[in-house]
Amino acid sequence: MRPTAVLFALSAFALPAAAAATDIQKEYGEVSRKIIAAALEDQEGLARLQYLCDRIGHRLSGSPSLERAIQWSAEEMKKAGLVNVQTPPVKVPHWVRGRESVTLLAPIERSLPMLGLGMSVGTPGEGITAEVVAVSSFDELQALGKDKILGKIVLFDPEWKGYGQTVLYRANGASRAAELGAVGTLVRSMTGNSLATPHTGALNYTVDVPKIPAAAITVEDAAMIHRLTKSGVPVKVRLMMEAKHLPDADSHNVMGEIRGREEPEEVVVLGGHIDSWDLGQGANDDGSGIIATFQAVALLQKLGLKPRRTIRVVFWVNEENGGTGGRAYRALVGDAVKNHVAAIEMDGGAEKPLGFGYGTGGEQRRRGGAAGVPAKQTSPASFQRAVEIGKLLESIGAGKMMPGGGGADIAPLLAAGVPGFGVRTVGEHYFDWHHTNADTFDKIVPREFRENVASLAVLAYVLADMPERIGDIE
Amino acid sequence: MRPTAVLFALSAFALPAAAAATDIQKEYGEVSRKIIAAALEDQEGLARLQYLCDRIGHRLSGSPSLERAIQWSAEEMKKAGLVNVQTPPVKVPHWVRGRESVTLLAPIERSLPMLGLGMSVGTPGEGITAEVVAVSSFDELQALGKDKILGKIVLFDPEWKGYGQTVLYRANGASRAAELGAVGTLVRSMTGNSLATPHTGALNYTVDVPKIPAAAITVEDAAMIHRLTKSGVPVKVRLMMEAKHLPDADSHNVMGEIRGREEPEEVVVLGGHIDSWDLGQGANDDGSGIIATFQAVALLQKLGLKPRRTIRVVFWVNEENGGTGGRAYRALVGDAVKNHVAAIEMDGGAEKPLGFGYGTGGEQRRRGGAAGVPAKQTSPASFQRAVEIGKLLESIGAGKMMPGGGGADIAPLLAAGVPGFGVRTVGEHYFDWHHTNADTFDKIVPREFRENVASLAVLAYVLADMPERIGDIE
Repeated sequence: MRPTAVLFALSAFALPAAAAATDIQKEYGEVSRKIIAAALEDQEGLARLQYLCDRIGHRLSGSPSLERAIQWSAEEMKKAGLVNVQTPPVKVPHWVRGRESVTLLAPIERSLPMLGLGMSVGTPGEGITAEVVAVSSFDELQALGKDKILGKIVLFDPEWKGYGQTVLYRANGASRAAELGAVGTLVRSMTGNSLATPHTGALNYTVDVPKIPAAAITVEDAAMIHRLTKSGVPVKVRLMMEAKHLPDADSHNVMGEIRGREEPEEVVVLGGHIDSWDLGQGANDDGSGIIATFQAVALLQKLGLKPRRTIRVVFWVNEENGGTGGRAYRALVGDAVKNHVAAIEMDGGAEKPLGFGYGTGGEQRRRGGAAGVPAKQTSPASFQRAVEIGKLLESIGAGKMMPGGGGADIAPLLAAGVPGFGVRTVGEHYFDWHHTNADTFDKIVPREFRENVASLAVLAYVLADMPERIGDIE
Repeated sequence: MRPTAVLFALSAFALPAAAAATDIQKEYGEVSRKIIAAALEDQEGLARLQYLCDRIGHRLSGSPSLERAIQWSAEEMKKAGLVNVQTPPVKVPHWVRGRESVTLLAPIERSLPMLGLGMSVGTPGEGITAEVVAVSSFDELQALGKDKILGKIVLFDPEWKGYGQTVLYRANGASRAAELGAVGTLVRSMTGNSLATPHTGALNYTVDVPKIPAAAITVEDAAMIHRLTKSGVPVKVRLMMEAKHLPDADSHNVMGEIRGREEPEEVVVLGGHIDSWDLGQGANDDGSGIIATFQAVALLQKLGLKPRRTIRVVFWVNEENGGTGGRAYRALVGDAVKNHVAAIEMDGGAEKPLGFGYGTGGEQRRRGGAAGVPAKQTSPASFQRAVEIGKLLESIGAGKMMPGGGGADIAPLLAAGVPGFGVRTVGEHYFDWHHTNADTFDKIVPREFRENVASLAVLAYVLADMPERIGDIE
């Protein structure tokens, strides 16, 4: 006799709703083991990711390689037997880097490795030459005031407190410095581990503040400039960036499905973002996210599993410098957002997965971004159900459920009340590679990638198949 | 009465040779503790290294910054109270990098981070465009033969087996490929840990083999090209390098001394190399070596310690691409090499020191170089004496004596029979930074740098002060 059956017998009249609860281990233990076994032997997912990385490469919004990736992705979804494969149009910002450089001119002359920040304006052709004022914080900048900042290039060299705590200097530094009359900004790369590796990433200009050019330099060079200015040695640099904005470009999300056998209008959506910065291969950010979520669905299809509801994989476009793909998907589904049973995003690399963040509501905080509020906790019973599903992944250590959840691309869905899951990994090296030339296929550990595929496939399948909608469990 | 005197009295007739043996712990325990304490509190050495790194920067042979470093070093030696401060002239090769690039042209187009190898010839202005043949070993290259190599660019992408085992592909790859008709070579950077970080370093052209240009690409990109060629996808690149050799330049070694109180003609020499590659700051290769050896001597001077023999610090020039400084010093001392009691080299970075390699004779093997034979082991009694001296460093864990010893700059001395010591550290990260833009002052851990100063000062002092010459102990 199953303990839940006992419970049912005892409480049938008192608690009729709880009585119907699905016994997740009983119902889905066997199929989960089958899915996990298939994922851990899968070759196809890695082959797809390798093709994306080596044959298509990086994929900035507006670039021909992004469009090649989109076409290839749709073809692969069809080859995998998914249905309703579509590439709905999305207008995306079209920022191009052009040539760029930072040259230290005083106290000695040296070319500094650098990357302009995404969405930055450029400089005049001859560059901007100015003395550098280095600060550790916005407070320090503010304390210096207009007198000390006017006409200068500000270097933000904050202590590294992890990405989420530090990235505001990359995101907002340019406008904060421009408010005080700075003519350009530099920022230490957003990483705790550098081998002279510059990291790019988007900035956000504040409305009505002059737009000044901004670039990342290496942790090493930021430290050097900071040491010099602290000891009273004037530092002068020339910042040259050809960066510019072209008119918005035509691009696309990519979508494909396994149709639900009973409730085809109800949807579990999962995916990542297909665009990347114009560097390296976008292997972990977010090639692994789109290919792992896709391969999870491709494996369910290959195993002949037909869930109760539809499972849809989406490759959102333009996560890096606009977020138009996530918003376009939300607009596309319109009122049908109420039929979204859950949304699952993977956008933190394919290191060893630990589990998922689970939350909903509010406006999701874009990781490292300035706007929005954190996801809300779900009801205790709903969270407990997620915990039960997580137990199906204990054999690969990937089923821990944590508060929070989601990511930038599913934020518009979560804001509409859709329950959201975000993959959580050990996160040991992701920010070493993030937004650099080092984000390459060699960083993908096959076993860890496959564990991600396994955990995504199990979670998506159970959410789509169990009688209850996870968000409705009270 | 001192115990050594007791020993002497008891055994004067029975064991005259052994009887005279100095009790190292007794004689040098106190002074060693004093030296170590001073070194661990020293601020000056780090300030000097910071100045060298931040205010002078990298120091390639033939560059104005090297000459600035040489003049500054001589001034610092004088300030520290050293005597006989000299900058004897040395002619050095004058190789300049110029602009350079590697562009992947097929299967996709992408600019690849790269560094031309030191001493490489350049390409024609338009570069060299060719298909790439990737190999893991010289055996694989040889097996492909002229048919497959003629007109191609060869990529050497050997498995990383540590620097000493792998660097032969950087050193000798160009000529090995040229013998089979290759028009250029690429090599994976010599590191086991990359964040898209190219590493330069010298190559050696074989006499009578056509000189072809050679560059290092990142571990990541070498792996990518290798994956592509292994799967049958043709890879084409354009290699452009303006590298050229100018006429040999005038440069200098830098030397200074504490004169010995009893045997001033007998010398313990210690030092590192003042030149670096034209990247980063040459902080660990070998800024830390010259400044730590210098500061060790400066501290002895500051403590008013007058050893029996002379202690001389030398900053050898041109270790990286010629070795002319080490040879010039050997020529300069001439027959007085017989008065060199020991030579100590530090050229492996300032990570936590473990002890020293101790050996002599033969032609020292340049680390990672192809030529020469390893140092010979010294007599058991002499080695045992070194072990006794090492025990003085137990409090900082830096006194382990290991076979081997020396380095490129003192190799000519060891070849003439001078006992040689080479600093040995934990070596955890040195080759991550070696010959890259990441070899910067921030990588210096103050405590570890000071432990190096301490261990060098104690070793040099005891070798210069104890009655016996370490190499004569049988």
